[in-house]
Amino acid sequence: MGFAGKFRVHPHDTVHLGALGTRACRSMERIPTKAKTRRLVESIGDSQYLLYAGADRSLLIVLQGPDASGKDGLIRHVFSGVNPQGVKVTPFGEPSEAEARHDFLWRVHRRAPAKGEIAIFNRSHYEAVLAERVRKLVPREIWAERYALINSFEALLAENGTEICKFYLNISAEEQLMRFRRRLEDKSRQWKIDEADYSDRKLWREYQAAAEEMLRRTSTKIAPWYVIPSDHKWFRNYAVSRIILRSLRRMRLRTPRVQADIAEIKRKFHDAAGG
Amino acid sequence: MGFAGKFRVHPHDTVHLGALGTRACRSMERIPTKAKTRRLVESIGDSQYLLYAGADRSLLIVLQGPDASGKDGLIRHVFSGVNPQGVKVTPFGEPSEAEARHDFLWRVHRRAPAKGEIAIFNRSHYEAVLAERVRKLVPREIWAERYALINSFEALLAENGTEICKFYLNISAEEQLMRFRRRLEDKSRQWKIDEADYSDRKLWREYQAAAEEMLRRTSTKIAPWYVIPSDHKWFRNYAVSRIILRSLRRMRLRTPRVQADIAEIKRKFHDAAGG
Repeated sequence: MGFAGKFRVHPHDTVHLGALGTRACRSMERIPTKAKTRRLVESIGDSQYLLYAGADRSLLIVLQGPDASGKDGLIRHVFSGVNPQGVKVTPFGEPSEAEARHDFLWRVHRRAPAKGEIAIFNRSHYEAVLAERVRKLVPREIWAERYALINSFEALLAENGTEICKFYLNISAEEQLMRFRRRLEDKSRQWKIDEADYSDRKLWREYQAAAEEMLRRTSTKIAPWYVIPSDHKWFRNYAVSRIILRSLRRMRLRTPRVQADIAEIKRKFHDAAGG
Repeated sequence: MGFAGKFRVHPHDTVHLGALGTRACRSMERIPTKAKTRRLVESIGDSQYLLYAGADRSLLIVLQGPDASGKDGLIRHVFSGVNPQGVKVTPFGEPSEAEARHDFLWRVHRRAPAKGEIAIFNRSHYEAVLAERVRKLVPREIWAERYALINSFEALLAENGTEICKFYLNISAEEQLMRFRRRLEDKSRQWKIDEADYSDRKLWREYQAAAEEMLRRTSTKIAPWYVIPSDHKWFRNYAVSRIILRSLRRMRLRTPRVQADIAEIKRKFHDAAGG
């Protein structure tokens, strides 16, 4: 099994987030991972250029995970360094009033990547089977139907040439509390703190159960979920970069075919002009 | 006069692009500019975090300039390294059929930065007084009215807290031809070449005249134009980074006020839990 395979959820597989682990693989600890991640990020940049140039495929990256699991940090680490022209990040918070008057996929569909683009969803349509389910914002008969609707939606994107990678950043409840505490101690980040962050912790088990059902029912061949042990940021960044690069490479992106008659242009505009 | 002042077009000032120069200032050549630019880019990243956190101001960067003047390269150099969450790049090509059925500001208005965001326009609404004028796509009585409409539109954005910086990348006709030639020699970039790039060169003087009128009539106190000598890429990147950082600093961005009762949260959720 390759590296990506270790983290991929196979279609219909039962998932126990606790058993999958939140800490870096032991075998990895000796690798100088930061330097490796930097090189992976550079290669992602190179592939992104080809994606943009070719403009006939696209990449959608979906990020989910508990509060403080590192979705923002991951974006900052992996995608600073990639040309922002061609990368589109959308954070999905609670739906606005206007958004809520549409079906739950409407607002995400609008933000799907165009050909040549990478789109990153920081939270996503999956909130509709996570927060909305756990906080009982919609009844079971509504959210229970959503898994199939999501799978069809993602199949639609895939048909149009979109590669889809979904990452669930798996952290332990203890790590989350520690990160909240570090935020409390850091004056430059205290403004982010909200008591509501803590009240969601009471629903930790319900959130895990909802996430496990989501992973089982929506990890498909065309749009797999990867569960990334994320208590260690260096490992999270490394693993996600590596899997993203693998997906880009599998698209076999090439420099577009030359359309113009290069020799003719040289003769006409350069040699004649003495250029 | 400060650094930015050297390049700023004063309202109603007559502009001669030829006289403004396309080559780096002599006095700069000895400065280790690449390292300086790197530090400027890091500081832009720090300010961008505050902009994003505060979410009550925004920054709009408009890039114009002839083909091959380096708009794409500038974005890659200056904004790779800034967190893409909070940076939105829009390239404006020829209007689509649907866009063309609206007024000329409609499609750019939709891409204006939300509070907390940096928006970068790679070409912009100014094409409506450049290409559309020079190629005679619209009659004089239409484009002549557009300067005032543009100024009002930018005033609307400014009223809502948007800082606006407009850069005109000034290159010489000879430098453009040299860059086209380099592209011809580079197999990985040949796919970009189009004979039409050359036919626009016949209209070089008309483009310069249109740009000069645009600079004179739309450089305002709230939305100034900076004409950047851009024959040297290192100077272009340095000058634009420095002016962008200056604009961000003048916004006096601060970490948002802490809303939560930090002591209370510590007591309730951490000390009690033994965390």
